[in-house]
Formats: sequence, C-alpha cells, structure tokens
Amino acid sequence: MRRSKTSRHPFSAETIKRLSLYVRNLRQLQAKDTQVFSSSRISQFLNITPDQFRKDLSYFGEFGKRGVGYQVSTLIEAIERILGLDKAWKIALVGVGRLGSALLGFPGFSSFNMKIVAAFDSDKGKVGTVQDGLTVLPIARMKESIRENKITIAMVCTPPEVAQEVCDILIDAGVKAILNYAPVNIKAPREVFISTIDMACELESLIYFINR
Amino acid sequence: MRRSKTSRHPFSAETIKRLSLYVRNLRQLQAKDTQVFSSSRISQFLNITPDQFRKDLSYFGEFGKRGVGYQVSTLIEAIERILGLDKAWKIALVGVGRLGSALLGFPGFSSFNMKIVAAFDSDKGKVGTVQDGLTVLPIARMKESIRENKITIAMVCTPPEVAQEVCDILIDAGVKAILNYAPVNIKAPREVFISTIDMACELESLIYFINR
Repeated sequence: MRRSKTSRHPFSAETIKRLSLYVRNLRQLQAKDTQVFSSSRISQFLNITPDQFRKDLSYFGEFGKRGVGYQVSTLIEAIERILGLDKAWKIALVGVGRLGSALLGFPGFSSFNMKIVAAFDSDKGKVGTVQDGLTVLPIARMKESIRENKITIAMVCTPPEVAQEVCDILIDAGVKAILNYAPVNIKAPREVFISTIDMACELESLIYFINR
Repeated sequence: MRRSKTSRHPFSAETIKRLSLYVRNLRQLQAKDTQVFSSSRISQFLNITPDQFRKDLSYFGEFGKRGVGYQVSTLIEAIERILGLDKAWKIALVGVGRLGSALLGFPGFSSFNMKIVAAFDSDKGKVGTVQDGLTVLPIARMKESIRENKITIAMVCTPPEVAQEVCDILIDAGVKAILNYAPVNIKAPREVFISTIDMACELESLIYFINR
C-alpha cells in the first residue's frame, strides 16, 4: 500500500521503484564481472520488457550506445545519482517493537548509503537500551535530536493510534519523507512524502492472482 | 520492489494494490457510519483522482449508481470478493528471525481473512518454541506440513543464501504465491507468483522525491 505524492512528475512512482530494482540487478551483473550488456538481456533477470527498461531510462537521459549496449559501471553510477544514492542519508526510526527492531537490524540499507542514526520509543523499558549499536531515546527527545542531526527521513513502526501524532512531531522537526508501517492514513503537508507499507496489502495482491 | 507476474492481465498490478487500499478506506468510512459516497469524495481520503477510482473499478463491473454514488457495504463486499478475501487463506512463514517474528505478530492479517498457520526455521534453538501460538517446525517438516495443510501462500524471511532453496521446496509442496523478503531474485515456474519486498527500495523512492 503506497501513496507517494508523485502526480507532479511525468513518470510514475513505479518508474522510480524499477530504477531501484535495476541498480540491484546491475550490481549483481557487476559482481559476475559483466562489463557491458544489451537491454534485450534485461528480461533474463527481471520480469521487465526491454522496451520498459529503455523507456524508464529515457526520462533521465541517454545511457546506452546503439549496437554496443550499456556500460554496467556507468549505468550503476548514473542510476544511483538519479535516485540520490550518491549522498549519505540519515534515518530516524520510531517504535522499536518487533518490526522496528527488525528494521534496525536490516543489513540492506548501508549498501545504498542509508543509515538509521536514531531510534525512539515511548516504552521506558526500551529507552536507554542499546539495539544494533544505537541507544533508544525517549519520544520527548525526538524533535531536538532530529533537528540536531538534520535527519530528513523517518520510519514509523508505532501502533496506529499514535502514528499521526508521531508524524506531526517528525514533520515539525524537519522530516521530509516518512515510511509508515502503521496501518493508518497519515495526513501531512503537501511537500512531505508519506509512503505507507501494509504487509497485508502485499499479500492481497498475491491472493488476487492465485485466486483466479 | 515487486515483480509480480501480471503481464497477462489487462490492468496493472497497481490496480489490485489500489483495490486493497480502497477496501481499507471504505471500512474506515463504514466505521464512521457513512453508508453512501460519491467517487468525487475519494480524493478526500486518498491521493487518487475520482477518474482513477472509477477506472480501477470498471475492470470488474459496475458498482455505483449515477447521481446516487456507491453503497459502502456493497462496494466493500464486492472488492473483497474481487480480491479473493471472501475466502480464508492459510499462510506459511519461513525464517523466524526478527522480521519473521514481527510478521508472526502482525495483527493486520486476520481482518482480511489471512492467517499464518505454520512457521519454520532451520535454527535448532528456535524449533519447538512457541511464537504467537505457533510451534516453530524444522525445515525438514516443511514440505509435508504444507501439503497436509494445503497451504498455497508463503512468506520467506530467510537469509538470502538459502531463500531460493526454501522457495524450491515450498513450490514443490504446492505453494502458488510467495512474498519474499530476502534481498535476492527468486526463480520460479511461470505459474507461481513471486513478490519481493526490499525495505531499502521503499526508502529509495522517498529519497528520490525529497532529493529533487
């Protein structure tokens, strides 16, 4: 379930998601010492047509050479630059429950220049404990800590009842993008990007397709 | 990051994801005692145009009445039937690490007729323990248990190195749809639906939009 506010762009949010996918697959190609590839090969490792691949890239420039193909390392760098992954991004995590704790331990962020640098919880039993190298801070310290560390991205893993309140504080402190795992619609100013992930939604799509 | 094999359908996988979203919002309307609504109101609670809403529904039939609007309860039932949520779905979970454990405790599945009925892990320290009412079974019992229970959906939260092997066993046992949380491409026969969720991908889309 996602509701990124992307209607102001000529391409869909799905294009951006596919770029993330491309960069992962290109890195795998690179790890196998492949230096050049043609777009026709993309279907071999992704359920994507060569046309879709070329169209997605075309929004951002020209990256391949006719008759030669794409230089893997150049294309990786280009997509990482498009996505903003050439810079380091600091993330705040709110709600160190089971999901929050799983996200704290997720090894996949660092290879894309993202790092959870602060974790917050309202539970006094959790505040002060160290999880994956971070000391859990109380919600009362959140605003100050986010401002001090100039954090612009947050992941919210709180119960639904408090998610809106938490998001209001985050936005007030300067957060521009929130990945919300609480099953509730978050209201936010137009310039703040909210993406809500609902584990059950992901399953529903699969159920639809196997049910037919 | 998702790669559902949906190219054989006239509408995109995003249509189905939006149906999941609609049904959640309709339930919220229903909880507030709203019985009828017009599609023009959909933009009030979702970042969706009325046109998109009507187009998504149009693939599946006629649900609204001109000049009257949509009956909330009827539309909820219709969408749940379209999605297959009028039936109960049994789910197997493989890998009871931090993420797997968070999914086991996720309260949002049951309200959509989905239930995790079996959990598996290769760790001897976890096998035999009870988590959220389920006894964790060894991987060696997986094939038999999935066949016996006629489970067709699985969530895979294993390390990437073993995810393909686990999926092979699941598919062999009769699983038709897999939600894969391991950061690796899963190869599967055409008739099996694989959707890979990458926590970092979700963040990358947000980063793209705030980076501009």
